[in-house]
Amino acid sequence: MRPSGRTLGQIRPVTITRHFTTHAEGSVLIEFGDTKVICTASVEVGVPRFLKGQGKGWITAEYGMLPRSTHTRMRREATTGKQSGRTLEISRLIARALRAAVDLKALGENTISIDCDVIQADGGTRTAAITGACVALVDALNYMRAKDIIKTNPLKHMIAAVSVGIYKGEVITDLDYPEDSAADTDMNVVMTDTGKLIEIQGTAEEEPFSFEEMQAMLELAKNGINELFDIQKAALS
Amino acid sequence: MRPSGRTLGQIRPVTITRHFTTHAEGSVLIEFGDTKVICTASVEVGVPRFLKGQGKGWITAEYGMLPRSTHTRMRREATTGKQSGRTLEISRLIARALRAAVDLKALGENTISIDCDVIQADGGTRTAAITGACVALVDALNYMRAKDIIKTNPLKHMIAAVSVGIYKGEVITDLDYPEDSAADTDMNVVMTDTGKLIEIQGTAEEEPFSFEEMQAMLELAKNGINELFDIQKAALS
Amino acid sequence: MRPSGRTLGQIRPVTITRHFTTHAEGSVLIEFGDTKVICTASVEVGVPRFLKGQGKGWITAEYGMLPRSTHTRMRREATTGKQSGRTLEISRLIARALRAAVDLKALGENTISIDCDVIQADGGTRTAAITGACVALVDALNYMRAKDIIKTNPLKHMIAAVSVGIYKGEVITDLDYPEDSAADTDMNVVMTDTGKLIEIQGTAEEEPFSFEEMQAMLELAKNGINELFDIQKAALS
Amino acid sequence: MRPSGRTLGQIRPVTITRHFTTHAEGSVLIEFGDTKVICTASVEVGVPRFLKGQGKGWITAEYGMLPRSTHTRMRREATTGKQSGRTLEISRLIARALRAAVDLKALGENTISIDCDVIQADGGTRTAAITGACVALVDALNYMRAKDIIKTNPLKHMIAAVSVGIYKGEVITDLDYPEDSAADTDMNVVMTDTGKLIEIQGTAEEEPFSFEEMQAMLELAKNGINELFDIQKAALS
Amino acid sequence: MRPSGRTLGQIRPVTITRHFTTHAEGSVLIEFGDTKVICTASVEVGVPRFLKGQGKGWITAEYGMLPRSTHTRMRREATTGKQSGRTLEISRLIARALRAAVDLKALGENTISIDCDVIQADGGTRTAAITGACVALVDALNYMRAKDIIKTNPLKHMIAAVSVGIYKGEVITDLDYPEDSAADTDMNVVMTDTGKLIEIQGTAEEEPFSFEEMQAMLELAKNGINELFDIQKAALS
Amino acid sequence: MRPSGRTLGQIRPVTITRHFTTHAEGSVLIEFGDTKVICTASVEVGVPRFLKGQGKGWITAEYGMLPRSTHTRMRREATTGKQSGRTLEISRLIARALRAAVDLKALGENTISIDCDVIQADGGTRTAAITGACVALVDALNYMRAKDIIKTNPLKHMIAAVSVGIYKGEVITDLDYPEDSAADTDMNVVMTDTGKLIEIQGTAEEEPFSFEEMQAMLELAKNGINELFDIQKAALS
Repeated sequence: MRPSGRTLGQIRPVTITRHFTTHAEGSVLIEFGDTKVICTASVEVGVPRFLKGQGKGWITAEYGMLPRSTHTRMRREATTGKQSGRTLEISRLIARALRAAVDLKALGENTISIDCDVIQADGGTRTAAITGACVALVDALNYMRAKDIIKTNPLKHMIAAVSVGIYKGEVITDLDYPEDSAADTDMNVVMTDTGKLIEIQGTAEEEPFSFEEMQAMLELAKNGINELFDIQKAALS
Repeated sequence: MRPSGRTLGQIRPVTITRHFTTHAEGSVLIEFGDTKVICTASVEVGVPRFLKGQGKGWITAEYGMLPRSTHTRMRREATTGKQSGRTLEISRLIARALRAAVDLKALGENTISIDCDVIQADGGTRTAAITGACVALVDALNYMRAKDIIKTNPLKHMIAAVSVGIYKGEVITDLDYPEDSAADTDMNVVMTDTGKLIEIQGTAEEEPFSFEEMQAMLELAKNGINELFDIQKAALS
Repeated sequence: MRPSGRTLGQIRPVTITRHFTTHAEGSVLIEFGDTKVICTASVEVGVPRFLKGQGKGWITAEYGMLPRSTHTRMRREATTGKQSGRTLEISRLIARALRAAVDLKALGENTISIDCDVIQADGGTRTAAITGACVALVDALNYMRAKDIIKTNPLKHMIAAVSVGIYKGEVITDLDYPEDSAADTDMNVVMTDTGKLIEIQGTAEEEPFSFEEMQAMLELAKNGINELFDIQKAALS
Repeated sequence: MRPSGRTLGQIRPVTITRHFTTHAEGSVLIEFGDTKVICTASVEVGVPRFLKGQGKGWITAEYGMLPRSTHTRMRREATTGKQSGRTLEISRLIARALRAAVDLKALGENTISIDCDVIQADGGTRTAAITGACVALVDALNYMRAKDIIKTNPLKHMIAAVSVGIYKGEVITDLDYPEDSAADTDMNVVMTDTGKLIEIQGTAEEEPFSFEEMQAMLELAKNGINELFDIQKAALS
Repeated sequence: MRPSGRTLGQIRPVTITRHFTTHAEGSVLIEFGDTKVICTASVEVGVPRFLKGQGKGWITAEYGMLPRSTHTRMRREATTGKQSGRTLEISRLIARALRAAVDLKALGENTISIDCDVIQADGGTRTAAITGACVALVDALNYMRAKDIIKTNPLKHMIAAVSVGIYKGEVITDLDYPEDSAADTDMNVVMTDTGKLIEIQGTAEEEPFSFEEMQAMLELAKNGINELFDIQKAALS
Repeated sequence: MRPSGRTLGQIRPVTITRHFTTHAEGSVLIEFGDTKVICTASVEVGVPRFLKGQGKGWITAEYGMLPRSTHTRMRREATTGKQSGRTLEISRLIARALRAAVDLKALGENTISIDCDVIQADGGTRTAAITGACVALVDALNYMRAKDIIKTNPLKHMIAAVSVGIYKGEVITDLDYPEDSAADTDMNVVMTDTGKLIEIQGTAEEEPFSFEEMQAMLELAKNGINELFDIQKAALS
């Protein structure tokens, strides 16, 4: 019953291309089916002012979409003078999720800036961004180890994310755009590869959802994310 | 073990003052303990451009904090030229939650603008805002009925919201500021008085949380929100 | 002949509630009839850059209106990216008036930020703001004395403000909204409790006014402001 | 005792050059001593939205300073993204003053935009701007009559403005920059050539001023403004 | 003597990948060596207001760089609230160049929006952008023909662009980043495949250049651009 | 065939008024026929952050137009919140051109800020601005010598600029507004008085231009600029 012919719990084909661009310390092109996001991790010495002198590092993130990554052209945010609420919300989500993956003490007074730029959108851009950014982050941390900027690996665990939702009465995973725009409920789940939750954001677009549906969505999310961990590991090996 | 001496599942004293200011069609002062938010609902003829001609209404929301609603003075957003990501995120959350409470068709081509302004903050401003705004919304809808702007009551169900979290290893409800700033996990839950979920946003600030903790938080949220529904009803009767 | 039934020289009932919110060093709710303004005074160490090293303090002020403090909803200035000329003009007026009440040398290199937020508007918001802010300022200065931040009381005199105007050919005091929107001339007067003038801003909205009318307005303003000094003193005692 | 050697009530030499630039319907260079302001009046068909269909015209004004019109270079407001409170305050003052000179009904649904750009500043830029803009306005109205855009002359009376103040204990008129920056009180007065007041803005910069000083300042202002009316008339004849 | 080992007149390897993303009517990835730019052409019905009713179309362009397309991370322009002068200058250049390639009458009242987003920068991003955008434009025009939006092909000629400059005293073509940052003169040339000039922008960064050097740069540019026309044609066949 | 009756290579009458305003270290009114631009050069101690500690100076420039310098009133950029792409492009051009005239080492760690404000526009504002700004710059450098801020004169050569273009099939110089708005090609040329090129910007507005036309325009530009050098020298002697 899914437009793509996928089974309810089936995620899209996912590919991860490391070293996609040359300047960033970590640079990944991640594809969740037709959704394509460039994720870079940039290492910078120093931390924002509110953290100075505490011996801790920081991870920040920005999300953007190329104007024609979507079906109809969106206005370029640089020309409008401000980022939309949606853009800021996703940027904050990505940053929180990645900070939860890292021991900021072990990072020292350094900042890693994550940039996730969607070049083609077909639903699930924020979950693809988180999943790809974690791989770029690993590459950036490895760079820091190799350059002796840090002494130990600050990574506490891998993280990955998938969306789940209720579409035509069924609980499904990794919604593409046709599903996303018709779903009653949409939930994004970020997990660690130790089986714990980092972030969960569920929204009833039309109909409220029950505690049972919530449970079913979480189960499906766990399965989908576990597949993503395998794909991340394959890419990193 | 809670700084306020409350039990784990105990919400703060909540008071709802209707008709707090005179111009708005709905105007509520809601207090969750020391957190105080003015919630107004303004009825305006017409809808945003993207909805014109569809015979449906719209609900929008804006959230703000007075500069000295907090322990130290915050910069006034009107002077900085833009609203913070946090402000926009909360505004979007309030609007989505209230839209889910209303049959937009029955609202006709009218817009209700919700304004939630925090005059004193002690944690949980967004859940207080949603809970108070729903009462202001009811007053505004009653005004529209009385003025024959709408023929039927568009309200599908009441909504209310509470925060839950993990604080010093315990699952607690309705976190105040000292708890919120020290919690490992923070989750905001919006429910209908028909026992369903509208929105759930959980974030691991420090440590990831397990599926069991998630379950326990949801249970506590349900109880807290049910108390809020009683308080809303008392205020409206 | 006044819509409210007041005599020509009669000000509205004025109430001053101190300690209205808990975080600010000075926090006052002032009501001029149906006009309600929250005035806070926040003590901050240090001064703006242009004053550094001169051993003098500073007082700054910001004015705002909640979107639905007015009959029809106004756009929230935080969303428009800038404050209106009217807002900035009133902010500057409040700051100038309060600076004239204080010996900035005796304040040391500290800044007091005044925030005046209108929660309900019925004319005369700027004069209410000045009158209330002066009480909040006194509380903040007392706090600084109590905490030994300053050695002497920098207050030179109390200040208060009232509007006067020409309405249907008569000189009246403390215009409410129906009077203000129909007045030919509107004048705001700020005075010290030593009987001197701090600021006077008179505008002919429709018809120019004569020197005699000017004189009559000043007399009425003096009387109204003297009543306000009594109310301030009662509140502070 | 004045740095310039002027007597207490003596205004600076004033020159008015009409048709200073060629494109504007009214274009005046006004000089109050070393203060030089270009004032243009631009005729535009139509009125702002809030006036549409009422058969009335509108007058608006904008004020600016070239970056190096002052002793030290000021930042160009176009590069900072916003106009300062001072700029907006003066713009609003000029517009109000000129609207009070014109019968807006007789103007029809047309707008006159006044631009006052200071090319050299030595105190009193706002009073020079108002005085010069009134002459530019007359030229623009004459243009409209000549082109049959309006049937009757909407000018109700000429207006002019001068500053007065208290400097070293003396009441003086038309303060230049050295006086302005050292004055205790500064007051701007706008009058009609029928001897009435349009606008009065007095501010105690340091010491409050008495009602007697207020009276003396008004007298001096009246004299100075009457001289300006003679100069305007000579320029227009 | 060139860091890359190229001869003086040798351009970098250029590859053009059409249909790089799926939503845009024209979508090209162009690579000039390590410089990589995504160029999309979006077809939109209607024209900007200043062109309405004239029966002519319009072509507009926007240029951007991903934050980590460069050696060190640049600030994202969407977060700074404005585009830099450099960004606007290049956007205007691309738009002018492409408009000169098209008969706007034959385009009807339609707009083509060009977006050029640099994902990796190594010098020459604006010339790569123009050269790639022309191919994306051709694809968009073919789409319009196929959909019968236009009756005839509005393309007057192909355009392409290359940079030339004076580096260590020698005239060279298609400067990469190490050359560009050390060059005395930098000139961008846009030509038609009919051998004429569309745009020429030459700047002496350090030393002024002679008319003879100017001549030599133009010759080299012509040769380089002719090679680009061959590569465009191969890509389009 | 030129609307003004000029011959093809004839520039407009040019006048240069030094010391036009009193505060700036260099202040020039330059007139190219009816185009009038105020050019000031302001000397400031210190350099922008990116240059600190290198022992070099800096020259920056800003360009603006008074709202009614044009046939119809333009919006004031200070009110729109940003400068247009055209404004930024011209500002950057002026700054680059003047920096190329000066030995920045000899300037020491000082900044010269050039402001070019058009008070009346009739085509060629940017070339008039560059030509006038160079004279203002000379006055500012002389001021610095006289005040012993610098030891040697940093001026390497004078610069001047003129526009050339193709109008009704003929190559002409110093286009006025009627010519500029109808020209097929427009080219701005900046040269040194040692006969070399600093900047060249040619644009085909309608028809592409040939290498021969390019050559003819350059020749005409050289002649026109040589006349400007004579006028600059006369003004400075």
